[in-house]
Amino acid sequence: MRFFSDNAAAAHPAVIEAIAKSNELSTAYDGDELSQKLDGAFSELFETDLSALWVATGTAANCLALAALCPPFGAVICHRDAHIENDEAGAPAFYTHGAKLMLVDGPGAKVAPEAVDAAVARIRKDVHQVQPKALSITNATEYGLAYTADEVCALGERAKAHGLGFHMDGARFANAIVSTGASPADVTWRAGVEALSFGFVKNGGLNAEALILFKPGLAEEVAVRRKRAGHLLSKGRMMAAQILAMLENDLWLENARSANAAARTIAAAASERLVYPVEANEIFVRATPDEAATLRAAGFDFYDWAPGEIRLVTSWDQGGEPVERLAAAIAAL
Amino acid sequence: MRFFSDNAAAAHPAVIEAIAKSNELSTAYDGDELSQKLDGAFSELFETDLSALWVATGTAANCLALAALCPPFGAVICHRDAHIENDEAGAPAFYTHGAKLMLVDGPGAKVAPEAVDAAVARIRKDVHQVQPKALSITNATEYGLAYTADEVCALGERAKAHGLGFHMDGARFANAIVSTGASPADVTWRAGVEALSFGFVKNGGLNAEALILFKPGLAEEVAVRRKRAGHLLSKGRMMAAQILAMLENDLWLENARSANAAARTIAAAASERLVYPVEANEIFVRATPDEAATLRAAGFDFYDWAPGEIRLVTSWDQGGEPVERLAAAIAAL
Amino acid sequence: MRFFSDNAAAAHPAVIEAIAKSNELSTAYDGDELSQKLDGAFSELFETDLSALWVATGTAANCLALAALCPPFGAVICHRDAHIENDEAGAPAFYTHGAKLMLVDGPGAKVAPEAVDAAVARIRKDVHQVQPKALSITNATEYGLAYTADEVCALGERAKAHGLGFHMDGARFANAIVSTGASPADVTWRAGVEALSFGFVKNGGLNAEALILFKPGLAEEVAVRRKRAGHLLSKGRMMAAQILAMLENDLWLENARSANAAARTIAAAASERLVYPVEANEIFVRATPDEAATLRAAGFDFYDWAPGEIRLVTSWDQGGEPVERLAAAIAAL
Amino acid sequence: MRFFSDNAAAAHPAVIEAIAKSNELSTAYDGDELSQKLDGAFSELFETDLSALWVATGTAANCLALAALCPPFGAVICHRDAHIENDEAGAPAFYTHGAKLMLVDGPGAKVAPEAVDAAVARIRKDVHQVQPKALSITNATEYGLAYTADEVCALGERAKAHGLGFHMDGARFANAIVSTGASPADVTWRAGVEALSFGFVKNGGLNAEALILFKPGLAEEVAVRRKRAGHLLSKGRMMAAQILAMLENDLWLENARSANAAARTIAAAASERLVYPVEANEIFVRATPDEAATLRAAGFDFYDWAPGEIRLVTSWDQGGEPVERLAAAIAAL
Repeated sequence: MRFFSDNAAAAHPAVIEAIAKSNELSTAYDGDELSQKLDGAFSELFETDLSALWVATGTAANCLALAALCPPFGAVICHRDAHIENDEAGAPAFYTHGAKLMLVDGPGAKVAPEAVDAAVARIRKDVHQVQPKALSITNATEYGLAYTADEVCALGERAKAHGLGFHMDGARFANAIVSTGASPADVTWRAGVEALSFGFVKNGGLNAEALILFKPGLAEEVAVRRKRAGHLLSKGRMMAAQILAMLENDLWLENARSANAAARTIAAAASERLVYPVEANEIFVRATPDEAATLRAAGFDFYDWAPGEIRLVTSWDQGGEPVERLAAAIAAL
Repeated sequence: MRFFSDNAAAAHPAVIEAIAKSNELSTAYDGDELSQKLDGAFSELFETDLSALWVATGTAANCLALAALCPPFGAVICHRDAHIENDEAGAPAFYTHGAKLMLVDGPGAKVAPEAVDAAVARIRKDVHQVQPKALSITNATEYGLAYTADEVCALGERAKAHGLGFHMDGARFANAIVSTGASPADVTWRAGVEALSFGFVKNGGLNAEALILFKPGLAEEVAVRRKRAGHLLSKGRMMAAQILAMLENDLWLENARSANAAARTIAAAASERLVYPVEANEIFVRATPDEAATLRAAGFDFYDWAPGEIRLVTSWDQGGEPVERLAAAIAAL
Repeated sequence: MRFFSDNAAAAHPAVIEAIAKSNELSTAYDGDELSQKLDGAFSELFETDLSALWVATGTAANCLALAALCPPFGAVICHRDAHIENDEAGAPAFYTHGAKLMLVDGPGAKVAPEAVDAAVARIRKDVHQVQPKALSITNATEYGLAYTADEVCALGERAKAHGLGFHMDGARFANAIVSTGASPADVTWRAGVEALSFGFVKNGGLNAEALILFKPGLAEEVAVRRKRAGHLLSKGRMMAAQILAMLENDLWLENARSANAAARTIAAAASERLVYPVEANEIFVRATPDEAATLRAAGFDFYDWAPGEIRLVTSWDQGGEPVERLAAAIAAL
Repeated sequence: MRFFSDNAAAAHPAVIEAIAKSNELSTAYDGDELSQKLDGAFSELFETDLSALWVATGTAANCLALAALCPPFGAVICHRDAHIENDEAGAPAFYTHGAKLMLVDGPGAKVAPEAVDAAVARIRKDVHQVQPKALSITNATEYGLAYTADEVCALGERAKAHGLGFHMDGARFANAIVSTGASPADVTWRAGVEALSFGFVKNGGLNAEALILFKPGLAEEVAVRRKRAGHLLSKGRMMAAQILAMLENDLWLENARSANAAARTIAAAASERLVYPVEANEIFVRATPDEAATLRAAGFDFYDWAPGEIRLVTSWDQGGEPVERLAAAIAAL
């Protein structure tokens, strides 16, 4: 039973169908009618005019955004446990042509406004040190915490005060929205976010993420950078089709609700063992090596995260049974 | 009726089915059993041990190959009309970190051994000029010509003599193979080619190309560069599934045969007007603006290429009728 | 007798003295009083507010300017024979992070307004092709021609119309100014030039060039890029001292007058053999291999440039005698 | 009285003289007889065949070395307080095309073998994380500590075991050599160091550092990268002249002895206040803001380093008097 990553989850049948159906269109790159609908569909969802581009991976979405917000000679402030720092093979440096990641700490991989201030204050304002030019946060965080709109807003104010571009890695944006109940607008552009990597692939998409650009004037440059990075797929209609299918009837929310509910079920069974509050679809659980072995022997697949700590990730496509069984198994430890 | 690009063609139903089927696998990135089969499948096809990686676009395949074969301070010799020079938005410079494209001329976008020698000879052997480090050719060329194994072999010898890496952009490799009847091995590694971008997307694939690395020792680095470029899709099984579906029962050859046959039909009708011999699935036809307008009025969609010249591209999915109609319409001009 | 390059000429004694004298100052990087004088000194010379930074080479000056004027995904229009294309080892791509040089032709390495228009027109306005973002010309050109203010102005208008940044490589700016009699202001910012590499090293300087930024708002970024490129020398006072010594009493003009006069003397003797008009300190002379050998046997050192063509370069430090002897030797061929 | 940096010290008169004398040579770039002597001079000093190139700054020397030892997709392990991390404006990322600095801790900015092991162990061996490819240490360190040959050797063994290139930033190499009495060979290549930035500018040079390449096969590539970075000065003879003047009669050691002795004098007076042992020419002293103000009022110029801590740097050109006065002033606090 798969609890090691939502990355490995299935694509939703509606997504597969949408791909198959879009196959009929004979238009290359993003000239098709589906790709052309994205700006409108996301503008409606976010209640503002914006630009939306499909890309095939979250890494590409994140790094295109960073390249648009941070010059090669600048730095991006982010959490030490951020995906862009740990799991993207240096893609941020590749796309930005060498910008630096300036790491801050904070519980649960959350960035606090004070941490941003401190990071900025640490840097001398001269040409010898790399100057911070952008801020990137992950929502939900790499440890499954969701930012409230107020929290993002406080960060947005610091970003503005320090002249920093503001990016949100929303690989699990759906899980965060479901968790906090915040409106997509409140937790992003109204709070100062300028670019959002809106993830679908962990949540029922196949290989299409959306890069949402709230800041006017970025779209043209980002479209060029996307092509330059080899990310302008010729059958782009199949990318747009996936995303539109996820938006239709709020499938993205429905899927995230399912994954979050599964996480809560497991969290309830592990309440004494939780490393972080469970606010999305990741559960970090204290477990001895023996206990981890017991769970694995029972058929559960997951990652050891730190000494005495395992990571469990739920997905939209996990029916109740494996989740119930895992909850029971943890309770029985 | 679409004759403007094979890029816009449909994915083959077998490819869509393979994607849907691979959805059942729960494995992330390229750890799945399908991705793991690629090395073997292509090693068999090319009769040698090699490494094969899926990537989502031909641009990414080409540029990953160039980055592996040419240092940032080197140059890649290619034809002035090469796709990497004209249609990839500077991706070669992005992926190689600034390597230069050193352009040569030649009829039909073909590179001749003498042109390689001349390009090398033009460069002073000092640190002030960018030194050529790689050669890249396109097969079939951007003007629809196919290289024979002997022709590639002659280039491979020049590449070796000059210490150049050797890359083949095979966006239409299938059409070239069908055209010349050469074995895949003879026209690539046996002729000195070290890396091949093996295209499927123009030929029935959805969004998976194969990057074939014949030169030992490149695969590990290229896999890192792929991730760093944001091209390691999390549901990689759906990439491998497409490619394996295209290889099964030689679907890739069958599709290319269909497209090439369509091109020959049109070429026969346009024989007095051909700018280049038709050896793959592209036909460059002399036509006045009035003649082009006549064809468009009859429902045919294509690009004006140069003054008095139009480009027609056939695809695997064009049944006989539109092709016959186009042939008749050209004959009637 | 050295006629192969003004690069190899001596530094003027006043420059050496200025370096020795500045040694007494105890200030690092560009915080010294001499470096702080550059903005003012050049603002006076160019009759406008501007920023001026010292750099150690013309290549660095050129490429810092290009990086400030052209994004990584853009192209710089320049002449096929431009120094940035042929003699800087790919430094433009390094500093700009991969921008492309878009080459145009024209007699004597001069760029004509029509050539700029044509280069822009050749590029499709889509994301597949690299879009031109800057124009770079060399004054005096690599073949020793000087632009008039009107000529630069016509280029500046085209640059503005096409949205191109405008850079002038003035490695031999002094020779051009002396030649045309144009005011420094007229031939640069009044004609639309936004950044000028003002060369001193070929004209009596030791290792200090000035990068002049007319366009407001560039200086801060360029100063950062200079440090990032390892070009912020710690004893910067010795850089500023050289430049100020060259400006004092118009030494830069005096030296250029001397070199230009020498070139005219030789040109007069070679009038039947000139490949280009001699407007600065370079003379391109038609000479058979035997004739070239005769000159070399007489002790003259120079480069063969093209079949049947040699290049002679005069320098500020060549007294009348070697020049007279060379003129006589050419006349006697 | 200047104690804020050895960067601001004067060039030694012998260096100025050597520059003036080399002015007579008429040879461009590094084709002159002085530049050609560097390999030999340093080979003798280091008792092995090596290549030596002049560069104008320590930043350029460091980053050219790192670019030669670490691919764009790799990481360089270094101390959190290393100059390459804190004071080079991101030049390492620029020159390496995006390689990451992987930071380790350790007292006095010294890297311990265990810290290297731990840094390597922290990284998963997969394509998602940037893999360490090089190790860079500073000798003397940024806090004025000198590595013994044994210490470097232990690091060299770890570098070799982990497949890491090994670079030493020797901006104050002379001070370290004088301090430990180690032979240049023992503390570098015999201990596994592959490239050394051999600093002269802080020690009496004007603007010439030497990049020493012990690892065979690097020199050709580094020479190209130097030109590509705009660091191939046309009057390179004046660079070589400086370095040869510094080597002659061991002037580099004499100067370092003078600076180190000055540091010891001050250290003796501040023995109760020292933050680190004083092994080179930097003294970190605990001092309250009031005490710092007292010293400044007495005419001493220096940096506040951390709360309650000041940094004093001695130079080769400080005669006994200011040093004695500073020592007395500290003793009197």
